[in-house]
Amino acid sequence: MSLITLITDFGAADHYVAAMKGVILSANPEARIVDITHEIPPHDIEAGAFTLLAACSSFPTGTIHVAVVDPGVGSERRPVLIEAGDQFFVGPDNGLFSYVCEKLGMKRAVVLTNPKYFRLPVSKTFNGRDIFAPVAAALSTGVKPARFGSETTELVQLRSLEPHASRGMIIARVIHIDRFGNCITNLTIDHLTPDQIQSGATLRLRGKTIRAFKNYFSEPGTRDKVFAMWGSTGFLEVVAANQPAAKLLKVKRNDEVRVTMQRSTN
Amino acid sequence: MSLITLITDFGAADHYVAAMKGVILSANPEARIVDITHEIPPHDIEAGAFTLLAACSSFPTGTIHVAVVDPGVGSERRPVLIEAGDQFFVGPDNGLFSYVCEKLGMKRAVVLTNPKYFRLPVSKTFNGRDIFAPVAAALSTGVKPARFGSETTELVQLRSLEPHASRGMIIARVIHIDRFGNCITNLTIDHLTPDQIQSGATLRLRGKTIRAFKNYFSEPGTRDKVFAMWGSTGFLEVVAANQPAAKLLKVKRNDEVRVTMQRSTN
Amino acid sequence: MSLITLITDFGAADHYVAAMKGVILSANPEARIVDITHEIPPHDIEAGAFTLLAACSSFPTGTIHVAVVDPGVGSERRPVLIEAGDQFFVGPDNGLFSYVCEKLGMKRAVVLTNPKYFRLPVSKTFNGRDIFAPVAAALSTGVKPARFGSETTELVQLRSLEPHASRGMIIARVIHIDRFGNCITNLTIDHLTPDQIQSGATLRLRGKTIRAFKNYFSEPGTRDKVFAMWGSTGFLEVVAANQPAAKLLKVKRNDEVRVTMQRSTN
Repeated sequence: MSLITLITDFGAADHYVAAMKGVILSANPEARIVDITHEIPPHDIEAGAFTLLAACSSFPTGTIHVAVVDPGVGSERRPVLIEAGDQFFVGPDNGLFSYVCEKLGMKRAVVLTNPKYFRLPVSKTFNGRDIFAPVAAALSTGVKPARFGSETTELVQLRSLEPHASRGMIIARVIHIDRFGNCITNLTIDHLTPDQIQSGATLRLRGKTIRAFKNYFSEPGTRDKVFAMWGSTGFLEVVAANQPAAKLLKVKRNDEVRVTMQRSTN
Repeated sequence: MSLITLITDFGAADHYVAAMKGVILSANPEARIVDITHEIPPHDIEAGAFTLLAACSSFPTGTIHVAVVDPGVGSERRPVLIEAGDQFFVGPDNGLFSYVCEKLGMKRAVVLTNPKYFRLPVSKTFNGRDIFAPVAAALSTGVKPARFGSETTELVQLRSLEPHASRGMIIARVIHIDRFGNCITNLTIDHLTPDQIQSGATLRLRGKTIRAFKNYFSEPGTRDKVFAMWGSTGFLEVVAANQPAAKLLKVKRNDEVRVTMQRSTN
Repeated sequence: MSLITLITDFGAADHYVAAMKGVILSANPEARIVDITHEIPPHDIEAGAFTLLAACSSFPTGTIHVAVVDPGVGSERRPVLIEAGDQFFVGPDNGLFSYVCEKLGMKRAVVLTNPKYFRLPVSKTFNGRDIFAPVAAALSTGVKPARFGSETTELVQLRSLEPHASRGMIIARVIHIDRFGNCITNLTIDHLTPDQIQSGATLRLRGKTIRAFKNYFSEPGTRDKVFAMWGSTGFLEVVAANQPAAKLLKVKRNDEVRVTMQRSTN
């Protein structure tokens, strides 16, 4: 329980991330700190929520994830500690943990109110350093979640990751676009089975119909520039070989993806 | 005494930072290394000096900070080890440690002349790897500062962080602009008290008068786009809610900030 | 043998690097992980090969380097573990380890075929997480190289780093351009001795003749904007003082560098 990850929108240029690490190592010199990323676009809670979800499944039981994408810092928005799956999450209650709660199952959430575990005085603009980092460090040394405050069951939720059905189609969306321009949708193998793909399911995105499914980027067999592929996070991705699909199709996050199953002909 | 931070202008793309880490871990496999940042603009000593100052107060006693923003590498500029506050600083004597010495108090400075602690041969272009990293690693294993060379009391100084008074005003300046476009001034609570703010002190920056003071970004109560706020480093910042104040006002580092206290009316 | 470095083209914004770290720390909580860089331009194998070579000489014996610049992921290209010099290298067999093998001497290469050491199921798009990271972690815990698969002697090779002679000249090339715009050539002191430089050797690059050689950037004595200098990696660099030489001369990687020795006049 001494592995702590950090994910923020602080960027790499300023001192903010280092300040959080200094606070953690002051409280627990044995803590192992791993950066998930600090390049979440400023204030982009959805991007933070997705990236945290995508990363956390590779971490061991008991890992503590500190996430700070926090446009409401200093306001009434609540600082929280959440237990979901077998891991811990510390940060603002603004939807940032919405996806991990939905996918991993939320077990417990505690509102951070006990100033004993804060770095005092608490800055109105940098709770990452003064609340989230020291709470994570204390948790990593064995302090019980209940010591940080009282439980809550109502957390801010983002729009669900679950696609919905409408008139025989599945209405999904692009939930993330990565560095390579891959468009990650919220479709999983639960929504679109190998059989359905085999029998001719197609995607429609930005006015373009995508008929080709591949297993890996450089797989031969189709000349279609843009195709669909199961990505490493378990979601279906719309991609292009050696090119950014997002740019080719002008895709933006939250763009709708319509899945049509093949019309049965028998 | 085995925590070592790194702050450089080397960027993230090249091998330079990793080479320094390899040297440190070769000499002290137990060293804990934390990056402050490697995105200091190339050769920008002032930016390095500020970021180091802002970060170091969050680190524990005995932390060793290695700083390399070093346009004069290979020339006669001296490599130094400085003890300031309760921490250590290793790097070139070119003003990079000026702010930490001013704010934390310089206790001792040693010119690094003992080649026993260098990686040989010393490259004329990469003292970070060949002098600063191995000296920091040796220091982290318990080598006494005096072993690295002889003491000096004359260090290169940047312009002081202290504002000055002129004709009833305080003449301050912008000392840093962060990723969010927040403009950090050199004003502290020693220069501008809550009472003075309460009674109507105003700032003038880039031809714009700033009358609003807030406690946090999303605090309600004023429609002014740009306002002043105490930042997390203890300096007054000129900021805007969810917008980069520096861009709105076209602020550059070192721009003057004039503080006018309210004219007394009794 | 528990120091693991990572070098990829994954960038800093996505979850990919963190996922690899999570996998490593799940398998070996004691592993020390150091980032070389994740800013290799996407799919740029040559840039990865150079940066790995430049970094690895600073790392201690037994360091394990995981390198992922892998446009052929999922295809028939082989995953490999290579022992070169006194270090280990894990990644795709696509030339990425070509330079370290050439310069350090390749001792052994093993094709990674034993799924016992993979994270299952292996994603077709993210072998970094599912093959390279867990193999490196297993190696760091003492698993013998032979356990991962069978040996091979044929590895994909990039163009050699060795310049060649032609009509009394040395034909070299630019093998890397760094953040500062320094143009790193494949010339070493084996190709161009101090005596030859002393007696008037010149470089020709992009139509420009470079006659000045300096020992460090700010060395006085010549007004030439662009000059040559021995860089910290042991290669000759074409540089400019406080300016990016690559931009001044419009240099691109792989541009030819012709070295002419002084015509003897006796």
